Amino acid sequence: MHHDNTDAIRRLKTAEGHLRGVQRMLEEDAYCIDVIRQIQAVQSSLNKISALLLEQHLNSCVITAVRGEDPAERERVMKEIGDVFEAATRV
Amino acid sequence: MHHDNTDAIRRLKTAEGHLRGVQRMLEEDAYCIDVIRQIQAVQSSLNKISALLLEQHLNSCVITAVRGEDPAERERVMKEIGDVFEAATRV
Amino acid sequence: MHHDNTDAIRRLKTAEGHLRGVQRMLEEDAYCIDVIRQIQAVQSSLNKISALLLEQHLNSCVITAVRGEDPAERERVMKEIGDVFEAATRV
Amino acid sequence: MHHDNTDAIRRLKTAEGHLRGVQRMLEEDAYCIDVIRQIQAVQSSLNKISALLLEQHLNSCVITAVRGEDPAERERVMKEIGDVFEAATRV
Repeated sequence: MHHDNTDAIRRLKTAEGHLRGVQRMLEEDAYCIDVIRQIQAVQSSLNKISALLLEQHLNSCVITAVRGEDPAERERVMKEIGDVFEAATRV
Repeated sequence: MHHDNTDAIRRLKTAEGHLRGVQRMLEEDAYCIDVIRQIQAVQSSLNKISALLLEQHLNSCVITAVRGEDPAERERVMKEIGDVFEAATRV
Repeated sequence: MHHDNTDAIRRLKTAEGHLRGVQRMLEEDAYCIDVIRQIQAVQSSLNKISALLLEQHLNSCVITAVRGEDPAERERVMKEIGDVFEAATRV
Repeated sequence: MHHDNTDAIRRLKTAEGHLRGVQRMLEEDAYCIDVIRQIQAVQSSLNKISALLLEQHLNSCVITAVRGEDPAERERVMKEIGDVFEAATRV
Protein backbone atom coordinates (compact mmCIF):
# COMPACT_ATOMS: atom_id res chain seq x y z
CA MET A 1 0.00 0.00 0.00
CA HIS A 2 1.39 3.39 -0.91
CA HIS A 3 1.76 5.95 1.85
CA ASP A 4 2.92 9.54 1.93
CA ASN A 5 5.92 9.10 4.17
CA THR A 6 7.39 12.57 3.57
CA ASP A 7 6.87 13.68 7.16
CA ALA A 8 8.26 10.48 8.71
CA ILE A 9 11.28 10.52 6.38
CA ARG A 10 11.99 14.14 7.23
CA ARG A 11 11.77 13.39 10.94
CA LEU A 12 14.07 10.36 10.56
CA LYS A 13 16.65 12.49 8.72
CA THR A 14 16.52 14.90 11.64
CA ALA A 15 16.97 12.07 14.15
CA GLU A 16 19.87 10.72 12.07
CA GLY A 17 21.54 14.13 12.08
CA HIS A 18 20.94 14.36 15.82
CA LEU A 19 22.77 11.06 16.30
CA ARG A 20 25.69 12.36 14.23
CA GLY A 21 25.76 15.32 16.59
CA VAL A 22 25.86 12.93 19.54
CA GLN A 23 28.86 11.16 17.98
CA ARG A 24 30.64 14.49 17.65
CA MET A 25 29.90 15.24 21.32
CA LEU A 26 31.60 11.97 22.26
CA GLU A 27 34.56 12.65 19.97
CA GLU A 28 34.92 16.00 21.72
CA ASP A 29 34.63 14.41 25.20
CA ALA A 30 31.40 16.11 26.10
CA TYR A 31 30.02 15.56 29.58
CA CYS A 32 28.45 12.06 29.74
CA ILE A 33 25.13 13.25 31.15
CA ASP A 34 24.73 15.80 28.34
CA VAL A 35 25.31 13.00 25.82
CA ILE A 36 22.72 10.76 27.52
CA ARG A 37 20.20 13.62 27.48
CA GLN A 38 20.69 14.03 23.72
CA ILE A 39 20.25 10.29 23.18
CA GLN A 40 17.02 10.48 25.18
CA ALA A 41 15.88 13.39 23.01
CA VAL A 42 16.47 11.29 19.89
CA GLN A 43 14.48 8.50 21.53
CA SER A 44 11.56 10.87 22.11
CA SER A 45 11.64 11.77 18.42
CA LEU A 46 11.72 8.09 17.43
CA ASN A 47 8.75 7.37 19.69
CA LYS A 48 6.86 10.15 17.93
CA ILE A 49 7.76 8.79 14.48
CA SER A 50 6.60 5.27 15.46
CA ALA A 51 3.33 6.74 16.71
CA LEU A 52 2.78 8.61 13.40
CA LEU A 53 3.54 5.47 11.39
CA LEU A 54 1.16 3.40 13.51
CA GLU A 55 -1.58 6.02 13.06
CA GLN A 56 -1.07 5.87 9.30
CA HIS A 57 -1.11 2.06 9.41
CA LEU A 58 -4.28 1.99 11.47
CA ASN A 59 -6.06 4.30 9.06
CA SER A 60 -5.09 2.36 5.97
CA CYS A 61 -3.83 -1.24 6.10
CA VAL A 62 -5.79 -2.14 9.24
CA ILE A 63 -9.10 -0.77 8.04
CA THR A 64 -8.61 -2.57 4.72
CA ALA A 65 -7.81 -5.87 6.44
CA VAL A 66 -10.65 -5.64 8.94
CA ARG A 67 -13.21 -4.76 6.26
CA GLY A 68 -11.84 -7.47 4.00
CA GLU A 69 -13.02 -11.03 3.53
CA ASP A 70 -10.02 -12.81 5.00
CA PRO A 71 -10.31 -13.46 8.77
CA ALA A 72 -6.69 -14.70 8.85
CA GLU A 73 -5.52 -11.36 7.47
CA ARG A 74 -7.62 -9.49 10.04
CA GLU A 75 -6.20 -11.65 12.81
CA ARG A 76 -2.67 -11.06 11.57
CA VAL A 77 -2.91 -7.26 11.52
CA MET A 78 -4.47 -7.19 14.99
CA LYS A 79 -1.76 -9.44 16.40
CA GLU A 80 0.93 -7.20 14.88
CA ILE A 81 -0.53 -4.12 16.56
CA GLY A 82 -0.63 -5.94 19.90
CA ASP A 83 2.99 -7.01 19.41
CA VAL A 84 4.36 -3.55 18.59
CA PHE A 85 2.36 -2.10 21.48
CA GLU A 86 3.93 -4.60 23.87
CA ALA A 87 7.38 -3.91 22.39
CA ALA A 88 6.78 -0.16 22.80
CA THR A 89 6.54 -0.66 26.56
CA ARG A 90 9.97 -2.29 26.51
CA VAL A 91 12.05 0.26 24.60
CA MET B 1 -19.26 -4.74 25.26
CA HIS B 2 -18.87 -7.63 27.64
CA HIS B 3 -15.43 -9.17 27.99
CA ASP B 4 -14.08 -12.06 29.99
CA ASN B 5 -11.66 -10.12 32.16
CA THR B 6 -10.91 -12.96 34.59
CA ASP B 7 -7.26 -13.24 33.56
CA ALA B 8 -6.62 -9.50 33.65
CA ILE B 9 -8.35 -9.16 37.05
CA ARG B 10 -6.28 -12.02 38.46
CA ARG B 11 -3.09 -10.45 37.17
CA LEU B 12 -4.06 -7.07 38.61
CA LYS B 13 -4.73 -8.64 42.03
CA THR B 14 -1.24 -10.16 41.85
CA ALA B 15 0.27 -6.78 40.94
CA GLU B 16 -1.65 -5.15 43.79
CA GLY B 17 -0.32 -7.75 46.23
CA HIS B 18 3.17 -7.21 44.84
CA LEU B 19 2.85 -3.47 45.59
CA ARG B 20 1.76 -4.27 49.17
CA GLY B 21 4.90 -6.36 49.43
CA VAL B 22 6.95 -3.40 48.22
CA GLN B 23 5.38 -1.22 50.94
CA ARG B 24 6.38 -3.79 53.56
CA MET B 25 9.92 -3.79 52.19
CA LEU B 26 10.05 -0.01 52.70
CA GLU B 27 8.55 -0.26 56.19
CA GLU B 28 11.29 -2.78 57.01
CA ASP B 29 14.02 -0.53 55.50
CA ALA B 30 14.92 -2.90 52.70
CA TYR B 31 17.81 -1.96 50.44
CA CYS B 32 16.63 0.79 48.01
CA ILE B 33 17.83 -1.01 44.90
CA ASP B 34 15.93 -4.17 45.84
CA VAL B 35 12.78 -2.06 46.24
CA ILE B 36 13.30 -0.40 42.83
CA ARG B 37 13.77 -3.83 41.23
CA GLN B 38 10.45 -4.99 42.67
CA ILE B 39 8.71 -1.86 41.40
CA GLN B 40 10.20 -2.55 37.97
CA ALA B 41 8.85 -6.13 38.17
CA VAL B 42 5.36 -4.74 38.86
CA GLN B 43 5.86 -2.39 35.89
CA SER B 44 6.56 -5.40 33.65
CA SER B 45 3.40 -7.12 34.86
CA LEU B 46 1.35 -3.99 34.19
CA ASN B 47 2.83 -3.75 30.68
CA LYS B 48 1.72 -7.32 30.07
CA ILE B 49 -1.80 -6.64 31.39
CA SER B 50 -2.16 -3.57 29.15
CA ALA B 51 -1.01 -5.65 26.18
CA LEU B 52 -3.62 -8.35 26.93
CA LEU B 53 -6.37 -5.75 27.29
CA LEU B 54 -5.38 -4.09 24.02
CA GLU B 55 -5.40 -7.45 22.24
CA GLN B 56 -8.91 -8.10 23.56
CA HIS B 57 -9.98 -4.61 22.53
CA LEU B 58 -8.54 -5.02 19.04
CA ASN B 59 -10.37 -8.31 18.53
CA SER B 60 -13.72 -6.99 19.68
CA CYS B 61 -14.51 -3.29 19.90
CA VAL B 62 -12.16 -2.29 17.10
CA ILE B 63 -13.36 -4.88 14.62
CA THR B 64 -16.95 -3.91 15.40
CA ALA B 65 -16.24 -0.20 14.92
CA VAL B 66 -14.26 -0.68 11.72
CA ARG B 67 -16.90 -2.96 10.17
CA GLY B 68 -19.63 -0.61 11.28
CA GLU B 69 -21.35 2.15 9.39
CA ASP B 70 -20.07 5.09 11.40
CA PRO B 71 -16.78 6.55 10.08
CA ALA B 72 -16.54 8.84 13.13
CA GLU B 73 -16.62 5.80 15.41
CA ARG B 74 -13.97 4.07 13.30
CA GLU B 75 -11.82 7.20 13.43
CA ARG B 76 -12.28 7.45 17.19
CA VAL B 77 -11.17 3.89 17.95
CA MET B 78 -8.12 4.22 15.69
CA LYS B 79 -7.10 7.48 17.33
CA GLU B 80 -7.44 5.89 20.79
CA ILE B 81 -5.10 3.05 19.81
CA GLY B 82 -2.56 5.52 18.46
CA ASP B 83 -2.81 7.52 21.69
CA VAL B 84 -2.29 4.58 24.06
CA PHE B 85 0.58 3.35 21.86
CA GLU B 86 2.28 6.73 22.15
CA ALA B 87 1.62 6.79 25.91
CA ALA B 88 3.10 3.28 26.20
CA THR B 89 6.43 4.63 24.98
CA ARG B 90 6.36 7.17 27.81
CA VAL B 91 5.71 4.91 30.83
CA MET C 1 20.67 2.18 56.53
CA HIS C 2 17.54 3.82 57.87
CA HIS C 3 15.55 6.02 55.52
CA ASP C 4 12.44 8.09 55.93
CA ASN C 5 10.21 6.26 53.49
CA THR C 6 6.97 7.94 54.54
CA ASP C 7 6.49 9.68 51.20
CA ALA C 8 7.28 6.60 49.11
CA ILE C 9 5.00 4.40 51.25
CA ARG C 10 2.16 6.90 50.93
CA ARG C 11 2.60 7.03 47.17
CA LEU C 12 2.67 3.23 46.96
CA LYS C 13 -0.57 3.01 48.96
CA THR C 14 -2.11 5.42 46.45
CA ALA C 15 -0.86 3.32 43.51
CA GLU C 16 -2.21 0.17 45.20
CA GLY C 17 -5.61 1.81 45.63
CA HIS C 18 -5.48 2.95 42.02
CA LEU C 19 -4.92 -0.67 40.92
CA ARG C 20 -7.91 -1.77 43.01
CA GLY C 21 -9.91 0.85 41.15
CA VAL C 22 -8.69 -0.60 37.86
CA GLN C 23 -9.87 -4.08 38.95
CA ARG C 24 -13.31 -2.63 39.70
CA MET C 25 -13.38 -1.02 36.25
CA LEU C 26 -12.76 -4.45 34.71
CA GLU C 27 -15.39 -6.11 36.91
CA GLU C 28 -17.82 -3.47 35.69
CA ASP C 29 -16.81 -3.97 32.02
CA ALA C 30 -15.35 -0.51 31.60
CA TYR C 31 -14.11 0.46 28.12
CA CYS C 32 -10.73 -1.26 27.53
CA ILE C 33 -8.93 1.90 26.50
CA ASP C 34 -10.02 3.68 29.68
CA VAL C 35 -8.63 0.77 31.70
CA ILE C 36 -5.31 0.87 29.81
CA ARG C 37 -5.08 4.63 30.43
CA GLN C 38 -5.52 4.06 34.18
CA ILE C 39 -2.83 1.37 34.17
CA GLN C 40 -0.52 3.79 32.38
CA ALA C 41 -1.29 6.41 35.05
CA VAL C 42 -0.29 3.93 37.77
CA GLN C 43 2.89 3.25 35.82
CA SER C 44 3.72 6.96 35.77
CA SER C 45 3.31 7.03 39.55
CA LEU C 46 5.54 3.99 39.95
CA ASN C 47 8.21 5.61 37.75
CA LYS C 48 8.10 8.65 40.03
CA ILE C 49 8.40 6.50 43.17
CA SER C 50 11.41 4.64 41.73
CA ALA C 51 13.02 7.98 40.89
CA LEU C 52 12.49 9.23 44.47
CA LEU C 53 13.93 6.03 45.92
CA LEU C 54 16.96 6.23 43.65
CA GLU C 55 17.55 9.85 44.63
CA GLN C 56 17.42 8.83 48.31
CA HIS C 57 19.77 5.93 47.63
CA LEU C 58 22.22 8.13 45.74
CA ASN C 59 22.33 10.66 48.57
CA SER C 60 22.93 8.06 51.27
CA CYS C 61 24.12 4.52 50.50
CA VAL C 62 26.04 5.50 47.39
CA ILE C 63 27.90 8.41 48.95
CA THR C 64 28.78 6.21 51.92
CA ALA C 65 30.08 3.41 49.68
CA VAL C 66 32.04 5.71 47.39
CA ARG C 67 33.66 7.56 50.29
CA GLY C 68 34.39 4.27 52.06
CA GLU C 69 37.50 2.16 52.01
CA ASP C 70 36.16 -0.84 50.13
CA PRO C 71 36.59 -0.61 46.32
CA ALA C 72 34.47 -3.76 45.87
CA GLU C 73 31.58 -2.08 47.68
CA ARG C 74 31.97 1.05 45.55
CA GLU C 75 32.02 -1.06 42.39
CA ARG C 76 28.95 -2.96 43.54
CA VAL C 77 26.80 0.13 44.17
CA MET C 78 27.82 1.67 40.84
CA LYS C 79 26.98 -1.51 38.97
CA GLU C 80 23.57 -1.65 40.66
CA ILE C 81 22.74 1.89 39.56
CA GLY C 82 23.76 1.06 36.00
CA ASP C 83 21.58 -2.06 36.12
CA VAL C 84 18.42 -0.35 37.38
CA PHE C 85 18.97 2.44 34.85
CA GLU C 86 19.13 -0.09 32.02
CA ALA C 87 16.07 -1.89 33.41
CA ALA C 88 14.21 1.45 33.61
CA THR C 89 14.51 1.78 29.84
CA ARG C 90 12.80 -1.61 29.45
CA VAL C 91 9.70 -1.17 31.62
CA MET D 1 37.46 14.22 31.89
CA HIS D 2 38.76 12.10 29.05
CA HIS D 3 36.96 8.88 28.28
CA ASP D 4 37.56 6.12 25.78
CA ASN D 5 34.35 6.49 23.81
CA THR D 6 35.36 4.20 20.94
CA ASP D 7 32.71 1.60 21.71
CA ALA D 8 29.88 4.12 22.19
CA ILE D 9 30.86 5.97 18.98
CA ARG D 10 30.95 2.71 17.03
CA ARG D 11 27.51 1.76 18.36
CA LEU D 12 26.12 5.21 17.51
CA LYS D 13 27.43 4.94 13.94
CA THR D 14 25.63 1.60 13.71
CA ALA D 15 22.40 3.13 15.05
CA GLU D 16 22.78 6.03 12.59
CA GLY D 17 23.18 3.58 9.71
CA HIS D 18 20.18 1.65 10.97
CA LEU D 19 18.09 4.84 10.83
CA ARG D 20 19.26 5.45 7.24
CA GLY D 21 18.04 1.95 6.48
CA VAL D 22 14.69 2.80 8.02
CA GLN D 23 14.45 5.88 5.78
CA ARG D 24 15.09 3.68 2.74
CA MET D 25 12.37 1.29 3.90
CA LEU D 26 9.92 4.22 3.97
CA GLU D 27 11.08 5.48 0.56
CA GLU D 28 10.41 1.99 -0.77
CA ASP D 29 6.98 1.81 0.91
CA ALA D 30 7.88 -1.00 3.28
CA TYR D 31 5.15 -2.41 5.49
CA CYS D 32 4.51 0.06 8.37
CA ILE D 33 4.82 -2.54 11.11
CA ASP D 34 8.22 -3.67 9.80
CA VAL D 35 9.37 -0.05 9.89
CA ILE D 36 8.14 0.39 13.48
CA ARG D 37 9.95 -2.79 14.50
CA GLN D 38 13.21 -1.44 13.07
CA ILE D 39 12.73 1.85 14.91
CA GLN D 40 12.17 -0.12 18.11
CA ALA D 41 15.40 -2.03 17.44
CA VAL D 42 17.26 1.28 17.15
CA GLN D 43 15.60 2.34 20.42
CA SER D 44 17.01 -0.78 22.11
CA SER D 45 20.50 0.01 20.83
CA LEU D 46 20.22 3.59 22.08
CA ASN D 47 19.10 2.33 25.52
CA LYS D 48 22.19 0.14 25.61
CA ILE D 49 24.48 3.02 24.60
CA SER D 50 23.00 5.28 27.31
CA ALA D 51 23.52 2.50 29.86
CA LEU D 52 27.19 2.13 28.84
CA LEU D 53 27.74 5.88 29.03
CA LEU D 54 26.14 6.04 32.46
CA GLU D 55 28.29 3.17 33.69
CA GLN D 56 31.39 5.01 32.49
CA HIS D 57 30.18 8.22 34.10
CA LEU D 58 29.47 6.50 37.41
CA ASN D 59 32.96 4.98 37.49
CA SER D 60 34.75 8.22 36.74
CA CYS D 61 33.06 11.63 37.13
CA VAL D 62 30.76 10.52 39.93
CA ILE D 63 33.42 8.86 42.04
CA THR D 64 35.63 11.92 41.62
CA ALA D 65 32.83 14.29 42.64
CA VAL D 66 31.73 12.20 45.61
CA ARG D 67 35.26 11.80 46.91
CA GLY D 68 35.97 15.49 46.35
CA GLU D 69 35.72 18.36 48.75
CA ASP D 70 32.82 20.19 47.15
CA PRO D 71 29.39 19.11 48.50
CA ALA D 72 27.64 21.20 45.84
CA GLU D 73 29.43 19.24 43.11
CA ARG D 74 28.50 15.95 44.78
CA GLU D 75 24.88 17.09 45.03
CA ARG D 76 24.88 18.13 41.39
CA VAL D 77 26.15 14.82 40.02
CA MET D 78 23.67 12.87 42.13
CA LYS D 79 20.77 15.02 40.97
CA GLU D 80 21.83 14.52 37.34
CA ILE D 81 21.78 10.73 37.73
CA GLY D 82 18.33 10.90 39.30
CA ASP D 83 17.13 13.10 36.43
CA VAL D 84 18.40 10.87 33.61
CA PHE D 85 17.00 7.82 35.42
CA GLU D 86 13.57 9.45 35.59
CA ALA D 87 13.85 10.50 31.93
CA ALA D 88 14.83 6.91 31.01
CA THR D 89 11.44 5.72 32.23
CA ARG D 90 9.78 8.17 29.86
CA VAL D 91 11.49 7.31 26.56
